[in-house]
Amino acid sequence: MKIAVDAMGGDNAPKEIVLGVMKAAAQYKDVEFLLFGDEVKINEYLADKTRIQVIHTDEKIESDDEPVRAVKRKKKASMVLAAQAVKDGEADACISAGNTGALMATGLFVIGRIKGIDRPALAPTLPTVTGKGFVMLDLGANSEAKPEHLLQFGLMGSVYAEKVRKIERPRVALLNIGTEETKGNDLTKRAFELMKNQEAYNFVGNVEARDIMMDVADVIVTDGFTGNMVLKSIEGTAGAFFSLMKMSLLNGFKNKIAASFLKKDLTELKAKMDYSEYGGACLFGVQAPVIKAHGSSNARAIFSTIRQARDMVQKQVVETIVTEVASGHLKAEQDKANQGGTKDE
Amino acid sequence: MKIAVDAMGGDNAPKEIVLGVMKAAAQYKDVEFLLFGDEVKINEYLADKTRIQVIHTDEKIESDDEPVRAVKRKKKASMVLAAQAVKDGEADACISAGNTGALMATGLFVIGRIKGIDRPALAPTLPTVTGKGFVMLDLGANSEAKPEHLLQFGLMGSVYAEKVRKIERPRVALLNIGTEETKGNDLTKRAFELMKNQEAYNFVGNVEARDIMMDVADVIVTDGFTGNMVLKSIEGTAGAFFSLMKMSLLNGFKNKIAASFLKKDLTELKAKMDYSEYGGACLFGVQAPVIKAHGSSNARAIFSTIRQARDMVQKQVVETIVTEVASGHLKAEQDKANQGGTKDE
Repeated sequence: MKIAVDAMGGDNAPKEIVLGVMKAAAQYKDVEFLLFGDEVKINEYLADKTRIQVIHTDEKIESDDEPVRAVKRKKKASMVLAAQAVKDGEADACISAGNTGALMATGLFVIGRIKGIDRPALAPTLPTVTGKGFVMLDLGANSEAKPEHLLQFGLMGSVYAEKVRKIERPRVALLNIGTEETKGNDLTKRAFELMKNQEAYNFVGNVEARDIMMDVADVIVTDGFTGNMVLKSIEGTAGAFFSLMKMSLLNGFKNKIAASFLKKDLTELKAKMDYSEYGGACLFGVQAPVIKAHGSSNARAIFSTIRQARDMVQKQVVETIVTEVASGHLKAEQDKANQGGTKDE
Repeated sequence: MKIAVDAMGGDNAPKEIVLGVMKAAAQYKDVEFLLFGDEVKINEYLADKTRIQVIHTDEKIESDDEPVRAVKRKKKASMVLAAQAVKDGEADACISAGNTGALMATGLFVIGRIKGIDRPALAPTLPTVTGKGFVMLDLGANSEAKPEHLLQFGLMGSVYAEKVRKIERPRVALLNIGTEETKGNDLTKRAFELMKNQEAYNFVGNVEARDIMMDVADVIVTDGFTGNMVLKSIEGTAGAFFSLMKMSLLNGFKNKIAASFLKKDLTELKAKMDYSEYGGACLFGVQAPVIKAHGSSNARAIFSTIRQARDMVQKQVVETIVTEVASGHLKAEQDKANQGGTKDE
């Protein structure tokens, strides 16, 4: 197996990327790496080149580049070349900690969509109080979503949760403003109908934003706009909470003692709320595994993201999505009868 | 001034409602109260009837009633009669801690919309880390919103923030998935254009969900679906946080000591994150002040909600909205030129 890595993306590139790749190469003897980026800078950190091939390029996509334009113009950017290696069959998956929008555009334009999936979706794994986590998609802030897109997101999340997260019969839920079937806006009402009537995955109905961290589902489906709002609300609230906690804990002698007692627990609590602990965000719907590592990834996070990519290749996540989409299980019963589709799961 | 109160709405009705009204009647000598509900049950708690008139009715709207149907069928419900008193000019404002959807329907069907406001909006005041708070609307989970609705929401929130929250030149922001002008879905992009070009209030641009608790704006405008998602995400994250904190604090002897040191601060922290501390949610866009008190309101919360209603009447919030809408300040420059509107603020 070969994994293509953009060495130049993220806040700590190329150092932490290179260190993470070396760690993964030492651990996973079945994986070879193609490392794209500035050879001189990469070699500063690349102490061991075993199963690691460096492909030099001067160009890179910046975090503030306009995604689509950058991908179209910077054809030699490290991120674009990594995706091109996948497209050309030289690598099985690619990862980057760089510009999220650009990676989505690269996946879409360079690697290409899976037939039958209308819109790719970005899917991080988010925390629950139980520590189990759940896959949420789309968080790519795609502009306008249609009900069919949400139907397809459910399938992709379900395959991933089952194959990589090893959850049997993952519970797939629709994010909505109430749990009743009749709740929601036009998009969620119509998506509910489609999801209820398919046979490709285990749809468990609506969930509310208030409950998503309480382990109510393994996969939660929403449009990119709403998903972005919810994710940032969670981040913002957690941030506000920690800043208030900190103010409290430094306020007076007794509190400082309490703080010293609680330091370890608070650090654990912060880690529990930090979704980067659960690995990178997968770009589902393209023809190979593409994973976005967190922009602030250190070597350990890059290592986890590589393991995630390796799992996706080994467990044939993309192939399973392709097969499921082709099988017609996403269609409602009557549609399938008309089309003579099969229905065993 | 007269305020109509639904004595039968909320988890603690009628007891806490009656106690709250008595407290307000004792404090505000300029206010009289019309209290609608079951006379026998109300009189159990109504020790002092000074400036309080009880109007008996057997009917009430339940928390799980389907809002629109309930309002149309239960014409003698305490909530509906309270609104009817406002419509008939017998009261200046009404409040209820009951079914939110039903109160919105009551406001709309019984009291009626302000001319030029296409859609009413429900607006609670939400917490910031600074303790200042901000008005957010719409959180009524109205189905589909149009850009013009968001434009109007901005005006109503701004008038309220200025008159009742005493904030000079309130900063009105649009909730979006990025701060740049070009970000968002079709709705937010078009709303941004309208808000940028009006002269009725101080539009400061987009804010992200991540930052809303950091005192970035005094009024934050969004559609009801997104608003509901964000509010519930905040609630859910705060809830998850407190449950994890509690688990930590009861985990081992040292932590229990720390917990005892921090008890007061944690209670304060919880209060800071609890938006019911900031009063009830206003239903803007109807022809009189209508306020939804939190369903779990105690007497103190009811008292606060009454003070809020009194402020809205005294400061002529509704009248100001009516005047502003009629003035044409919401229109863009060129529209106004065509219509010959005035433009001084």
